[in-house]
Amino acid sequence: MPPRPPIEYRDASPRVRAVFDDIKRTRQVADVNNFWKYLAHDPAALERTWTGLKEIMAPGALDALTKEMIYVAVSVTNGCGYCIASHSAAARKAGMSEAMFGELMAVVGMANETNRLANGYRVPIDPAFE
Amino acid sequence: MPPRPPIEYRDASPRVRAVFDDIKRTRQVADVNNFWKYLAHDPAALERTWTGLKEIMAPGALDALTKEMIYVAVSVTNGCGYCIASHSAAARKAGMSEAMFGELMAVVGMANETNRLANGYRVPIDPAFE
Amino acid sequence: MPPRPPIEYRDASPRVRAVFDDIKRTRQVADVNNFWKYLAHDPAALERTWTGLKEIMAPGALDALTKEMIYVAVSVTNGCGYCIASHSAAARKAGMSEAMFGELMAVVGMANETNRLANGYRVPIDPAFE
Amino acid sequence: MPPRPPIEYRDASPRVRAVFDDIKRTRQVADVNNFWKYLAHDPAALERTWTGLKEIMAPGALDALTKEMIYVAVSVTNGCGYCIASHSAAARKAGMSEAMFGELMAVVGMANETNRLANGYRVPIDPAFE
Amino acid sequence: MPPRPPIEYRDASPRVRAVFDDIKRTRQVADVNNFWKYLAHDPAALERTWTGLKEIMAPGALDALTKEMIYVAVSVTNGCGYCIASHSAAARKAGMSEAMFGELMAVVGMANETNRLANGYRVPIDPAFE
Amino acid sequence: MPPRPPIEYRDASPRVRAVFDDIKRTRQVADVNNFWKYLAHDPAALERTWTGLKEIMAPGALDALTKEMIYVAVSVTNGCGYCIASHSAAARKAGMSEAMFGELMAVVGMANETNRLANGYRVPIDPAFE
Repeated sequence: MPPRPPIEYRDASPRVRAVFDDIKRTRQVADVNNFWKYLAHDPAALERTWTGLKEIMAPGALDALTKEMIYVAVSVTNGCGYCIASHSAAARKAGMSEAMFGELMAVVGMANETNRLANGYRVPIDPAFE
Repeated sequence: MPPRPPIEYRDASPRVRAVFDDIKRTRQVADVNNFWKYLAHDPAALERTWTGLKEIMAPGALDALTKEMIYVAVSVTNGCGYCIASHSAAARKAGMSEAMFGELMAVVGMANETNRLANGYRVPIDPAFE
Repeated sequence: MPPRPPIEYRDASPRVRAVFDDIKRTRQVADVNNFWKYLAHDPAALERTWTGLKEIMAPGALDALTKEMIYVAVSVTNGCGYCIASHSAAARKAGMSEAMFGELMAVVGMANETNRLANGYRVPIDPAFE
Repeated sequence: MPPRPPIEYRDASPRVRAVFDDIKRTRQVADVNNFWKYLAHDPAALERTWTGLKEIMAPGALDALTKEMIYVAVSVTNGCGYCIASHSAAARKAGMSEAMFGELMAVVGMANETNRLANGYRVPIDPAFE
Repeated sequence: MPPRPPIEYRDASPRVRAVFDDIKRTRQVADVNNFWKYLAHDPAALERTWTGLKEIMAPGALDALTKEMIYVAVSVTNGCGYCIASHSAAARKAGMSEAMFGELMAVVGMANETNRLANGYRVPIDPAFE
Repeated sequence: MPPRPPIEYRDASPRVRAVFDDIKRTRQVADVNNFWKYLAHDPAALERTWTGLKEIMAPGALDALTKEMIYVAVSVTNGCGYCIASHSAAARKAGMSEAMFGELMAVVGMANETNRLANGYRVPIDPAFE
């Protein structure tokens, strides 16, 4: 029993189309990514996730590029193949150079290493951080 | 059998003291964090980790604040209590405002959510990202 | 060096065949899934895992469908592609509708998000929960 | 540098109070949990998270108890101490008996075990699940 | 609502006592760890987990010390505080020296780092490993 | 936007070639694995990771085989497909028999299971381990 196929614009309900239209307008793209076409099987989830994502990823105290790199850092840590591919592309589109990508990966790698060293050595939190 | 106690500067070998001295000089602090005092039980690991961290966290294509926020994003995703406490403090010291912290958390939360939605819906990678 | 190939029924030892037979009888299926054919390289692990799984997944205080959905929730959180595919199929076979699947994914996504918000904001446990 | 203290109702802005009031009304509780008091430092995140959670956790194709148990399954898998404590309490309040809790834990444990066995044996997805 | 208290030997049912007795005899200890006293709320889970653990951790192709160090490696990677504490103690009891512990931690840290680098750089599996 | 292609020896800079040469000499192999060819896009990361890995994986208080099995245990727990494939091969090359692999997987599976049981039952650390 395979997963259900993606929902294309031509087959979408008006409620789903409204979200797809907003994604395309906001991102200035001709079509939405597979993620949205699969999530469209649950229109309430599609609306809620897009609304939240749009609000969260808009430039604010942090710029769009920094936010995309944080997204990549989480996705790499979780090992989500789809998310690594799509958000690495989004970060590059937002201006991430290859040098920036290399440094991002280096920080992610080091953080994953020292997270485990702190666990294993059972390091208590310093009073200054409590 | 408790974990071994931290190694304080006064009890440290010359090899360990050299690392502690470099940390204090680089970070302009009076004493090193607990992390280094516990890792000092393995002087080779202490040297290697500090040398790597110093190289990786130095400003380059990414600035120091962005790197600290990426470190926090990974530590929060992994649920490492020590690392969340110490790197949130480091990020604030590097200039992270409370508004930036709020946006950082929002991106980390959303990325963790959509990572799982992509897994669960078994979304194939778009040809454009391959 | 590829992983060893799966062990098919015709090539299996009597000990492995006994487990395969019990799986087929219990689940009313013509053949066992790949998982069991690979695990069969370690007959003790095969026996132990099947015996445990059969005991745990049998209806009790929780019905079979609820148990399969919990299995999917864990597998999605861990990002185990094989387990997501096989247990989503098992949950559908046990009666999970597409509406139920959508709600399951929404809860899994939200739980993964708020788990990280609780970590990042370093929220102490309320006295009422201690 | 400790985390900022929780925001109590008496010190909250009207925007935060409106969310707190809705949580108290919806859950029929005298005060909100620590999670909301810490998240209140980011009123937009507070609103968005509560609105999403209220929508997702409302009974639908799945009942409230099943949803709370799925929340516990994710939180236990991620090792989020706060979330385990608060959602175990919520599940018990929604009717989870101790026998149900025991079965929930058994399924979560088994799923985490077999997720890793599937990874380690590199089991390919069966054609029937593709 | 706190978790239920541990079940002590004097208050245990005959079924639970039989498991506790076997743990004490096998490990040559005066009392069982908290883990077993909490799991005793579900006697079937207690029996199944102890029987599995006893079988798996017995010396075979791998000796007891190697097995305990692997247990620590997993527990540190998952960030399970209880399991890190109890299995580090068990590994030391089985002969792990402080030098061995240091090397164990170093490998665990490096593996966690390179796991993420492989994810982030999207490294395809070499034909030789397929 | 696909990931950048791997860097082959013939196209590598002298700095990258020096690392590739050392890997080939140390491991007595004709070519380096894909991991190194992708990491070569960041020569500083390539040097630092190889130097660290070479130091950490060299026989010391733990032998090479034990270290490779620990590496597999972490990679299986994290679900890193590339790392599972490459380090399972490395462990076999270092002498891991199929019986040892089976026991390794069994310990990894059991540890992942009991890690979650300890989380879910909220087991406090025994005084003896503190």
